[in-house]
Amino acid sequence: MRRIALGVQYDGTPWNGYQKQPARNTVQDKLEEALARFACTPIATTCAGRTDRGVHATEQVVHFDTELVRAEQSWVRGTNAFLPDSITVRWAHELPVLDGDEFHARFAARSRTYHYVLYNHPQPAALLHGRAGWTFRPLDEHRMREAAQHLIGTHDFSAFRSSDCQAKSPIKQMHEISVERKGDIIVFTLRASAFLHHMVRNIVGCLVFIGTGRNEPGWMAEVLAGRNRDLAAPTFMPDGLYLAKIEYDAKWGLPQEPRSPLPWF
Amino acid sequence: MRRIALGVQYDGTPWNGYQKQPARNTVQDKLEEALARFACTPIATTCAGRTDRGVHATEQVVHFDTELVRAEQSWVRGTNAFLPDSITVRWAHELPVLDGDEFHARFAARSRTYHYVLYNHPQPAALLHGRAGWTFRPLDEHRMREAAQHLIGTHDFSAFRSSDCQAKSPIKQMHEISVERKGDIIVFTLRASAFLHHMVRNIVGCLVFIGTGRNEPGWMAEVLAGRNRDLAAPTFMPDGLYLAKIEYDAKWGLPQEPRSPLPWF
Repeated sequence: MRRIALGVQYDGTPWNGYQKQPARNTVQDKLEEALARFACTPIATTCAGRTDRGVHATEQVVHFDTELVRAEQSWVRGTNAFLPDSITVRWAHELPVLDGDEFHARFAARSRTYHYVLYNHPQPAALLHGRAGWTFRPLDEHRMREAAQHLIGTHDFSAFRSSDCQAKSPIKQMHEISVERKGDIIVFTLRASAFLHHMVRNIVGCLVFIGTGRNEPGWMAEVLAGRNRDLAAPTFMPDGLYLAKIEYDAKWGLPQEPRSPLPWF
Repeated sequence: MRRIALGVQYDGTPWNGYQKQPARNTVQDKLEEALARFACTPIATTCAGRTDRGVHATEQVVHFDTELVRAEQSWVRGTNAFLPDSITVRWAHELPVLDGDEFHARFAARSRTYHYVLYNHPQPAALLHGRAGWTFRPLDEHRMREAAQHLIGTHDFSAFRSSDCQAKSPIKQMHEISVERKGDIIVFTLRASAFLHHMVRNIVGCLVFIGTGRNEPGWMAEVLAGRNRDLAAPTFMPDGLYLAKIEYDAKWGLPQEPRSPLPWF
C-alpha cells in the first residue's frame, strides 16, 4: 500500500463546500470521482481542512492510499483529465513511512493559513465577484492591525465559533494575523494551529467593524474574553476566503507552493 | 438632452460577448435593461469597443443620451442595483458640449488598450480558469518582447484580422506592446489607435509560438508583411483578454481609473 498526498487548488464558487455530500456536488466528490476514473477503482481521500460553500483553496492538501503504482506526474495529469476546470491537482507526492511514522493530511498538519481578500471601494468590482469580499465603507488597516494583535497566542476562541462547529476544543494557537493593503485590496492572513468553524470569517467581520470605526481596536480583546458568539460581528461573506497553506514537517518532502494570497500575486 | 458616459467593468465568462443580440444574453443587453429599469424609460447605449464572448473589461466606456436629471452617483448606484454581479458600473460622468464638439464613446477614443493575462505553468490553476489563458510550455518573454517590436508603428494588420471583421481599414497604429512576467503570470499590454476583430488574440497566438521556440522573433515581421491570416498562429483563447482602457482627450474630464492589468494588481 502506498500513501499519496495531493496539492489541490479550487474555486469554491460552483461547489457546495469541500466535504462529500449525498448530492455529490462538492469538491471532494469531484476529486474522488476523478481519482476513481483515473485509477479505475474507488479512492477515499482525507483532507487537511474542510472548507465551506463558496470558500476557495490555493493549496488544499489531501492524502489517499492505493495499491496502484503510478508516477507522481501521472497522478497529477491523469486526475486533472477528469476534473472540472474549477478544481486542479497541482502536485502529487508519494510519502515515505519514516520510523513507523505515517503522513496524515489532517493530523500531521502543524498549522493552517487562510487568506481573506477584501475589496474596499465605493463600487463593487465585477471581476472580483466571488473572489473577494467587498466593503464600501473606507477601512483603516492600521486600526485592524492593532486589533488583530489581541488574538495572537493561545486562547479559547469560542467567541468566533459557529454553533455547528465539531472541534473537540475551542482552544487554538494563533501564530500570526497580518493585514496588508495594496491599493483597494486588503489581504488578511491568519495562521493558527487549527481553526474553528467560521472562525476566520467571524474574525474578519470583527476586524471590519473596527476598520470602519464602528468599534475600537480594544473591542477585539473584549469579544475574545467574552467567549460568547453573540458579542462578535456577523459571519463575513465567504467570497474572499482562501485556504492557502497547510504546514507540515519538512521530512515529508511535500512539493508545496509558496504561500501566496492568490496565484496571480 | 444630456449625454452621460459610464465606466463599466465586466467578467465576460457568462455572457455572449458585449454587443446586443436577439437572445438578450450579452453585456449590452444587461446594461440597457438595468438602465431602463432605473430610468423607467428605454436607454440606448454606444460603446467604445465591442468585446467577444468570454472577453472581459476592466473599464469599457459607453455613452447614452437622456432627458432625465440624475446625480452621477445615482446613475452608478441605481444601475448597479439592477445589474448582475458580473457587470458593474464603476463611474458616471455627465458630458459637457464644448464649442459644439460632442463626446462619443467610440469616435472620441484616441486609443484602446488591451491586456492579455497568460498563466505559464505545467499545471492549470483552477482559480485562473476563465480569467487567464494557459500555456504549459515554458515561454521566453525576452523573445516575445523582441518579436513584438516588429508590430510597433502604422501597419496593415490584415495578417491578424478575422474573416468577419467589419473594420473599414486594416491599417492601424500600434503605439505599444509590452510583455511583463511576474512569476508564472505573463501580461501582454497592447495599445493601438484601434484593433481589428481578433487582432489581440491573433497577435498573442503568434507571440506564444515565438515564446516557446517554435518560431523565431523575426517571423513576426514576415507574418505582418504577408498580410495573410493563414500565415499567423491560430486565434488564442479569449479567457485572458481584458479591454483595459480607452483613452480620451482630458477635456472631457472622465473619471477614468488607472490602467491596471487586473483590479487586484
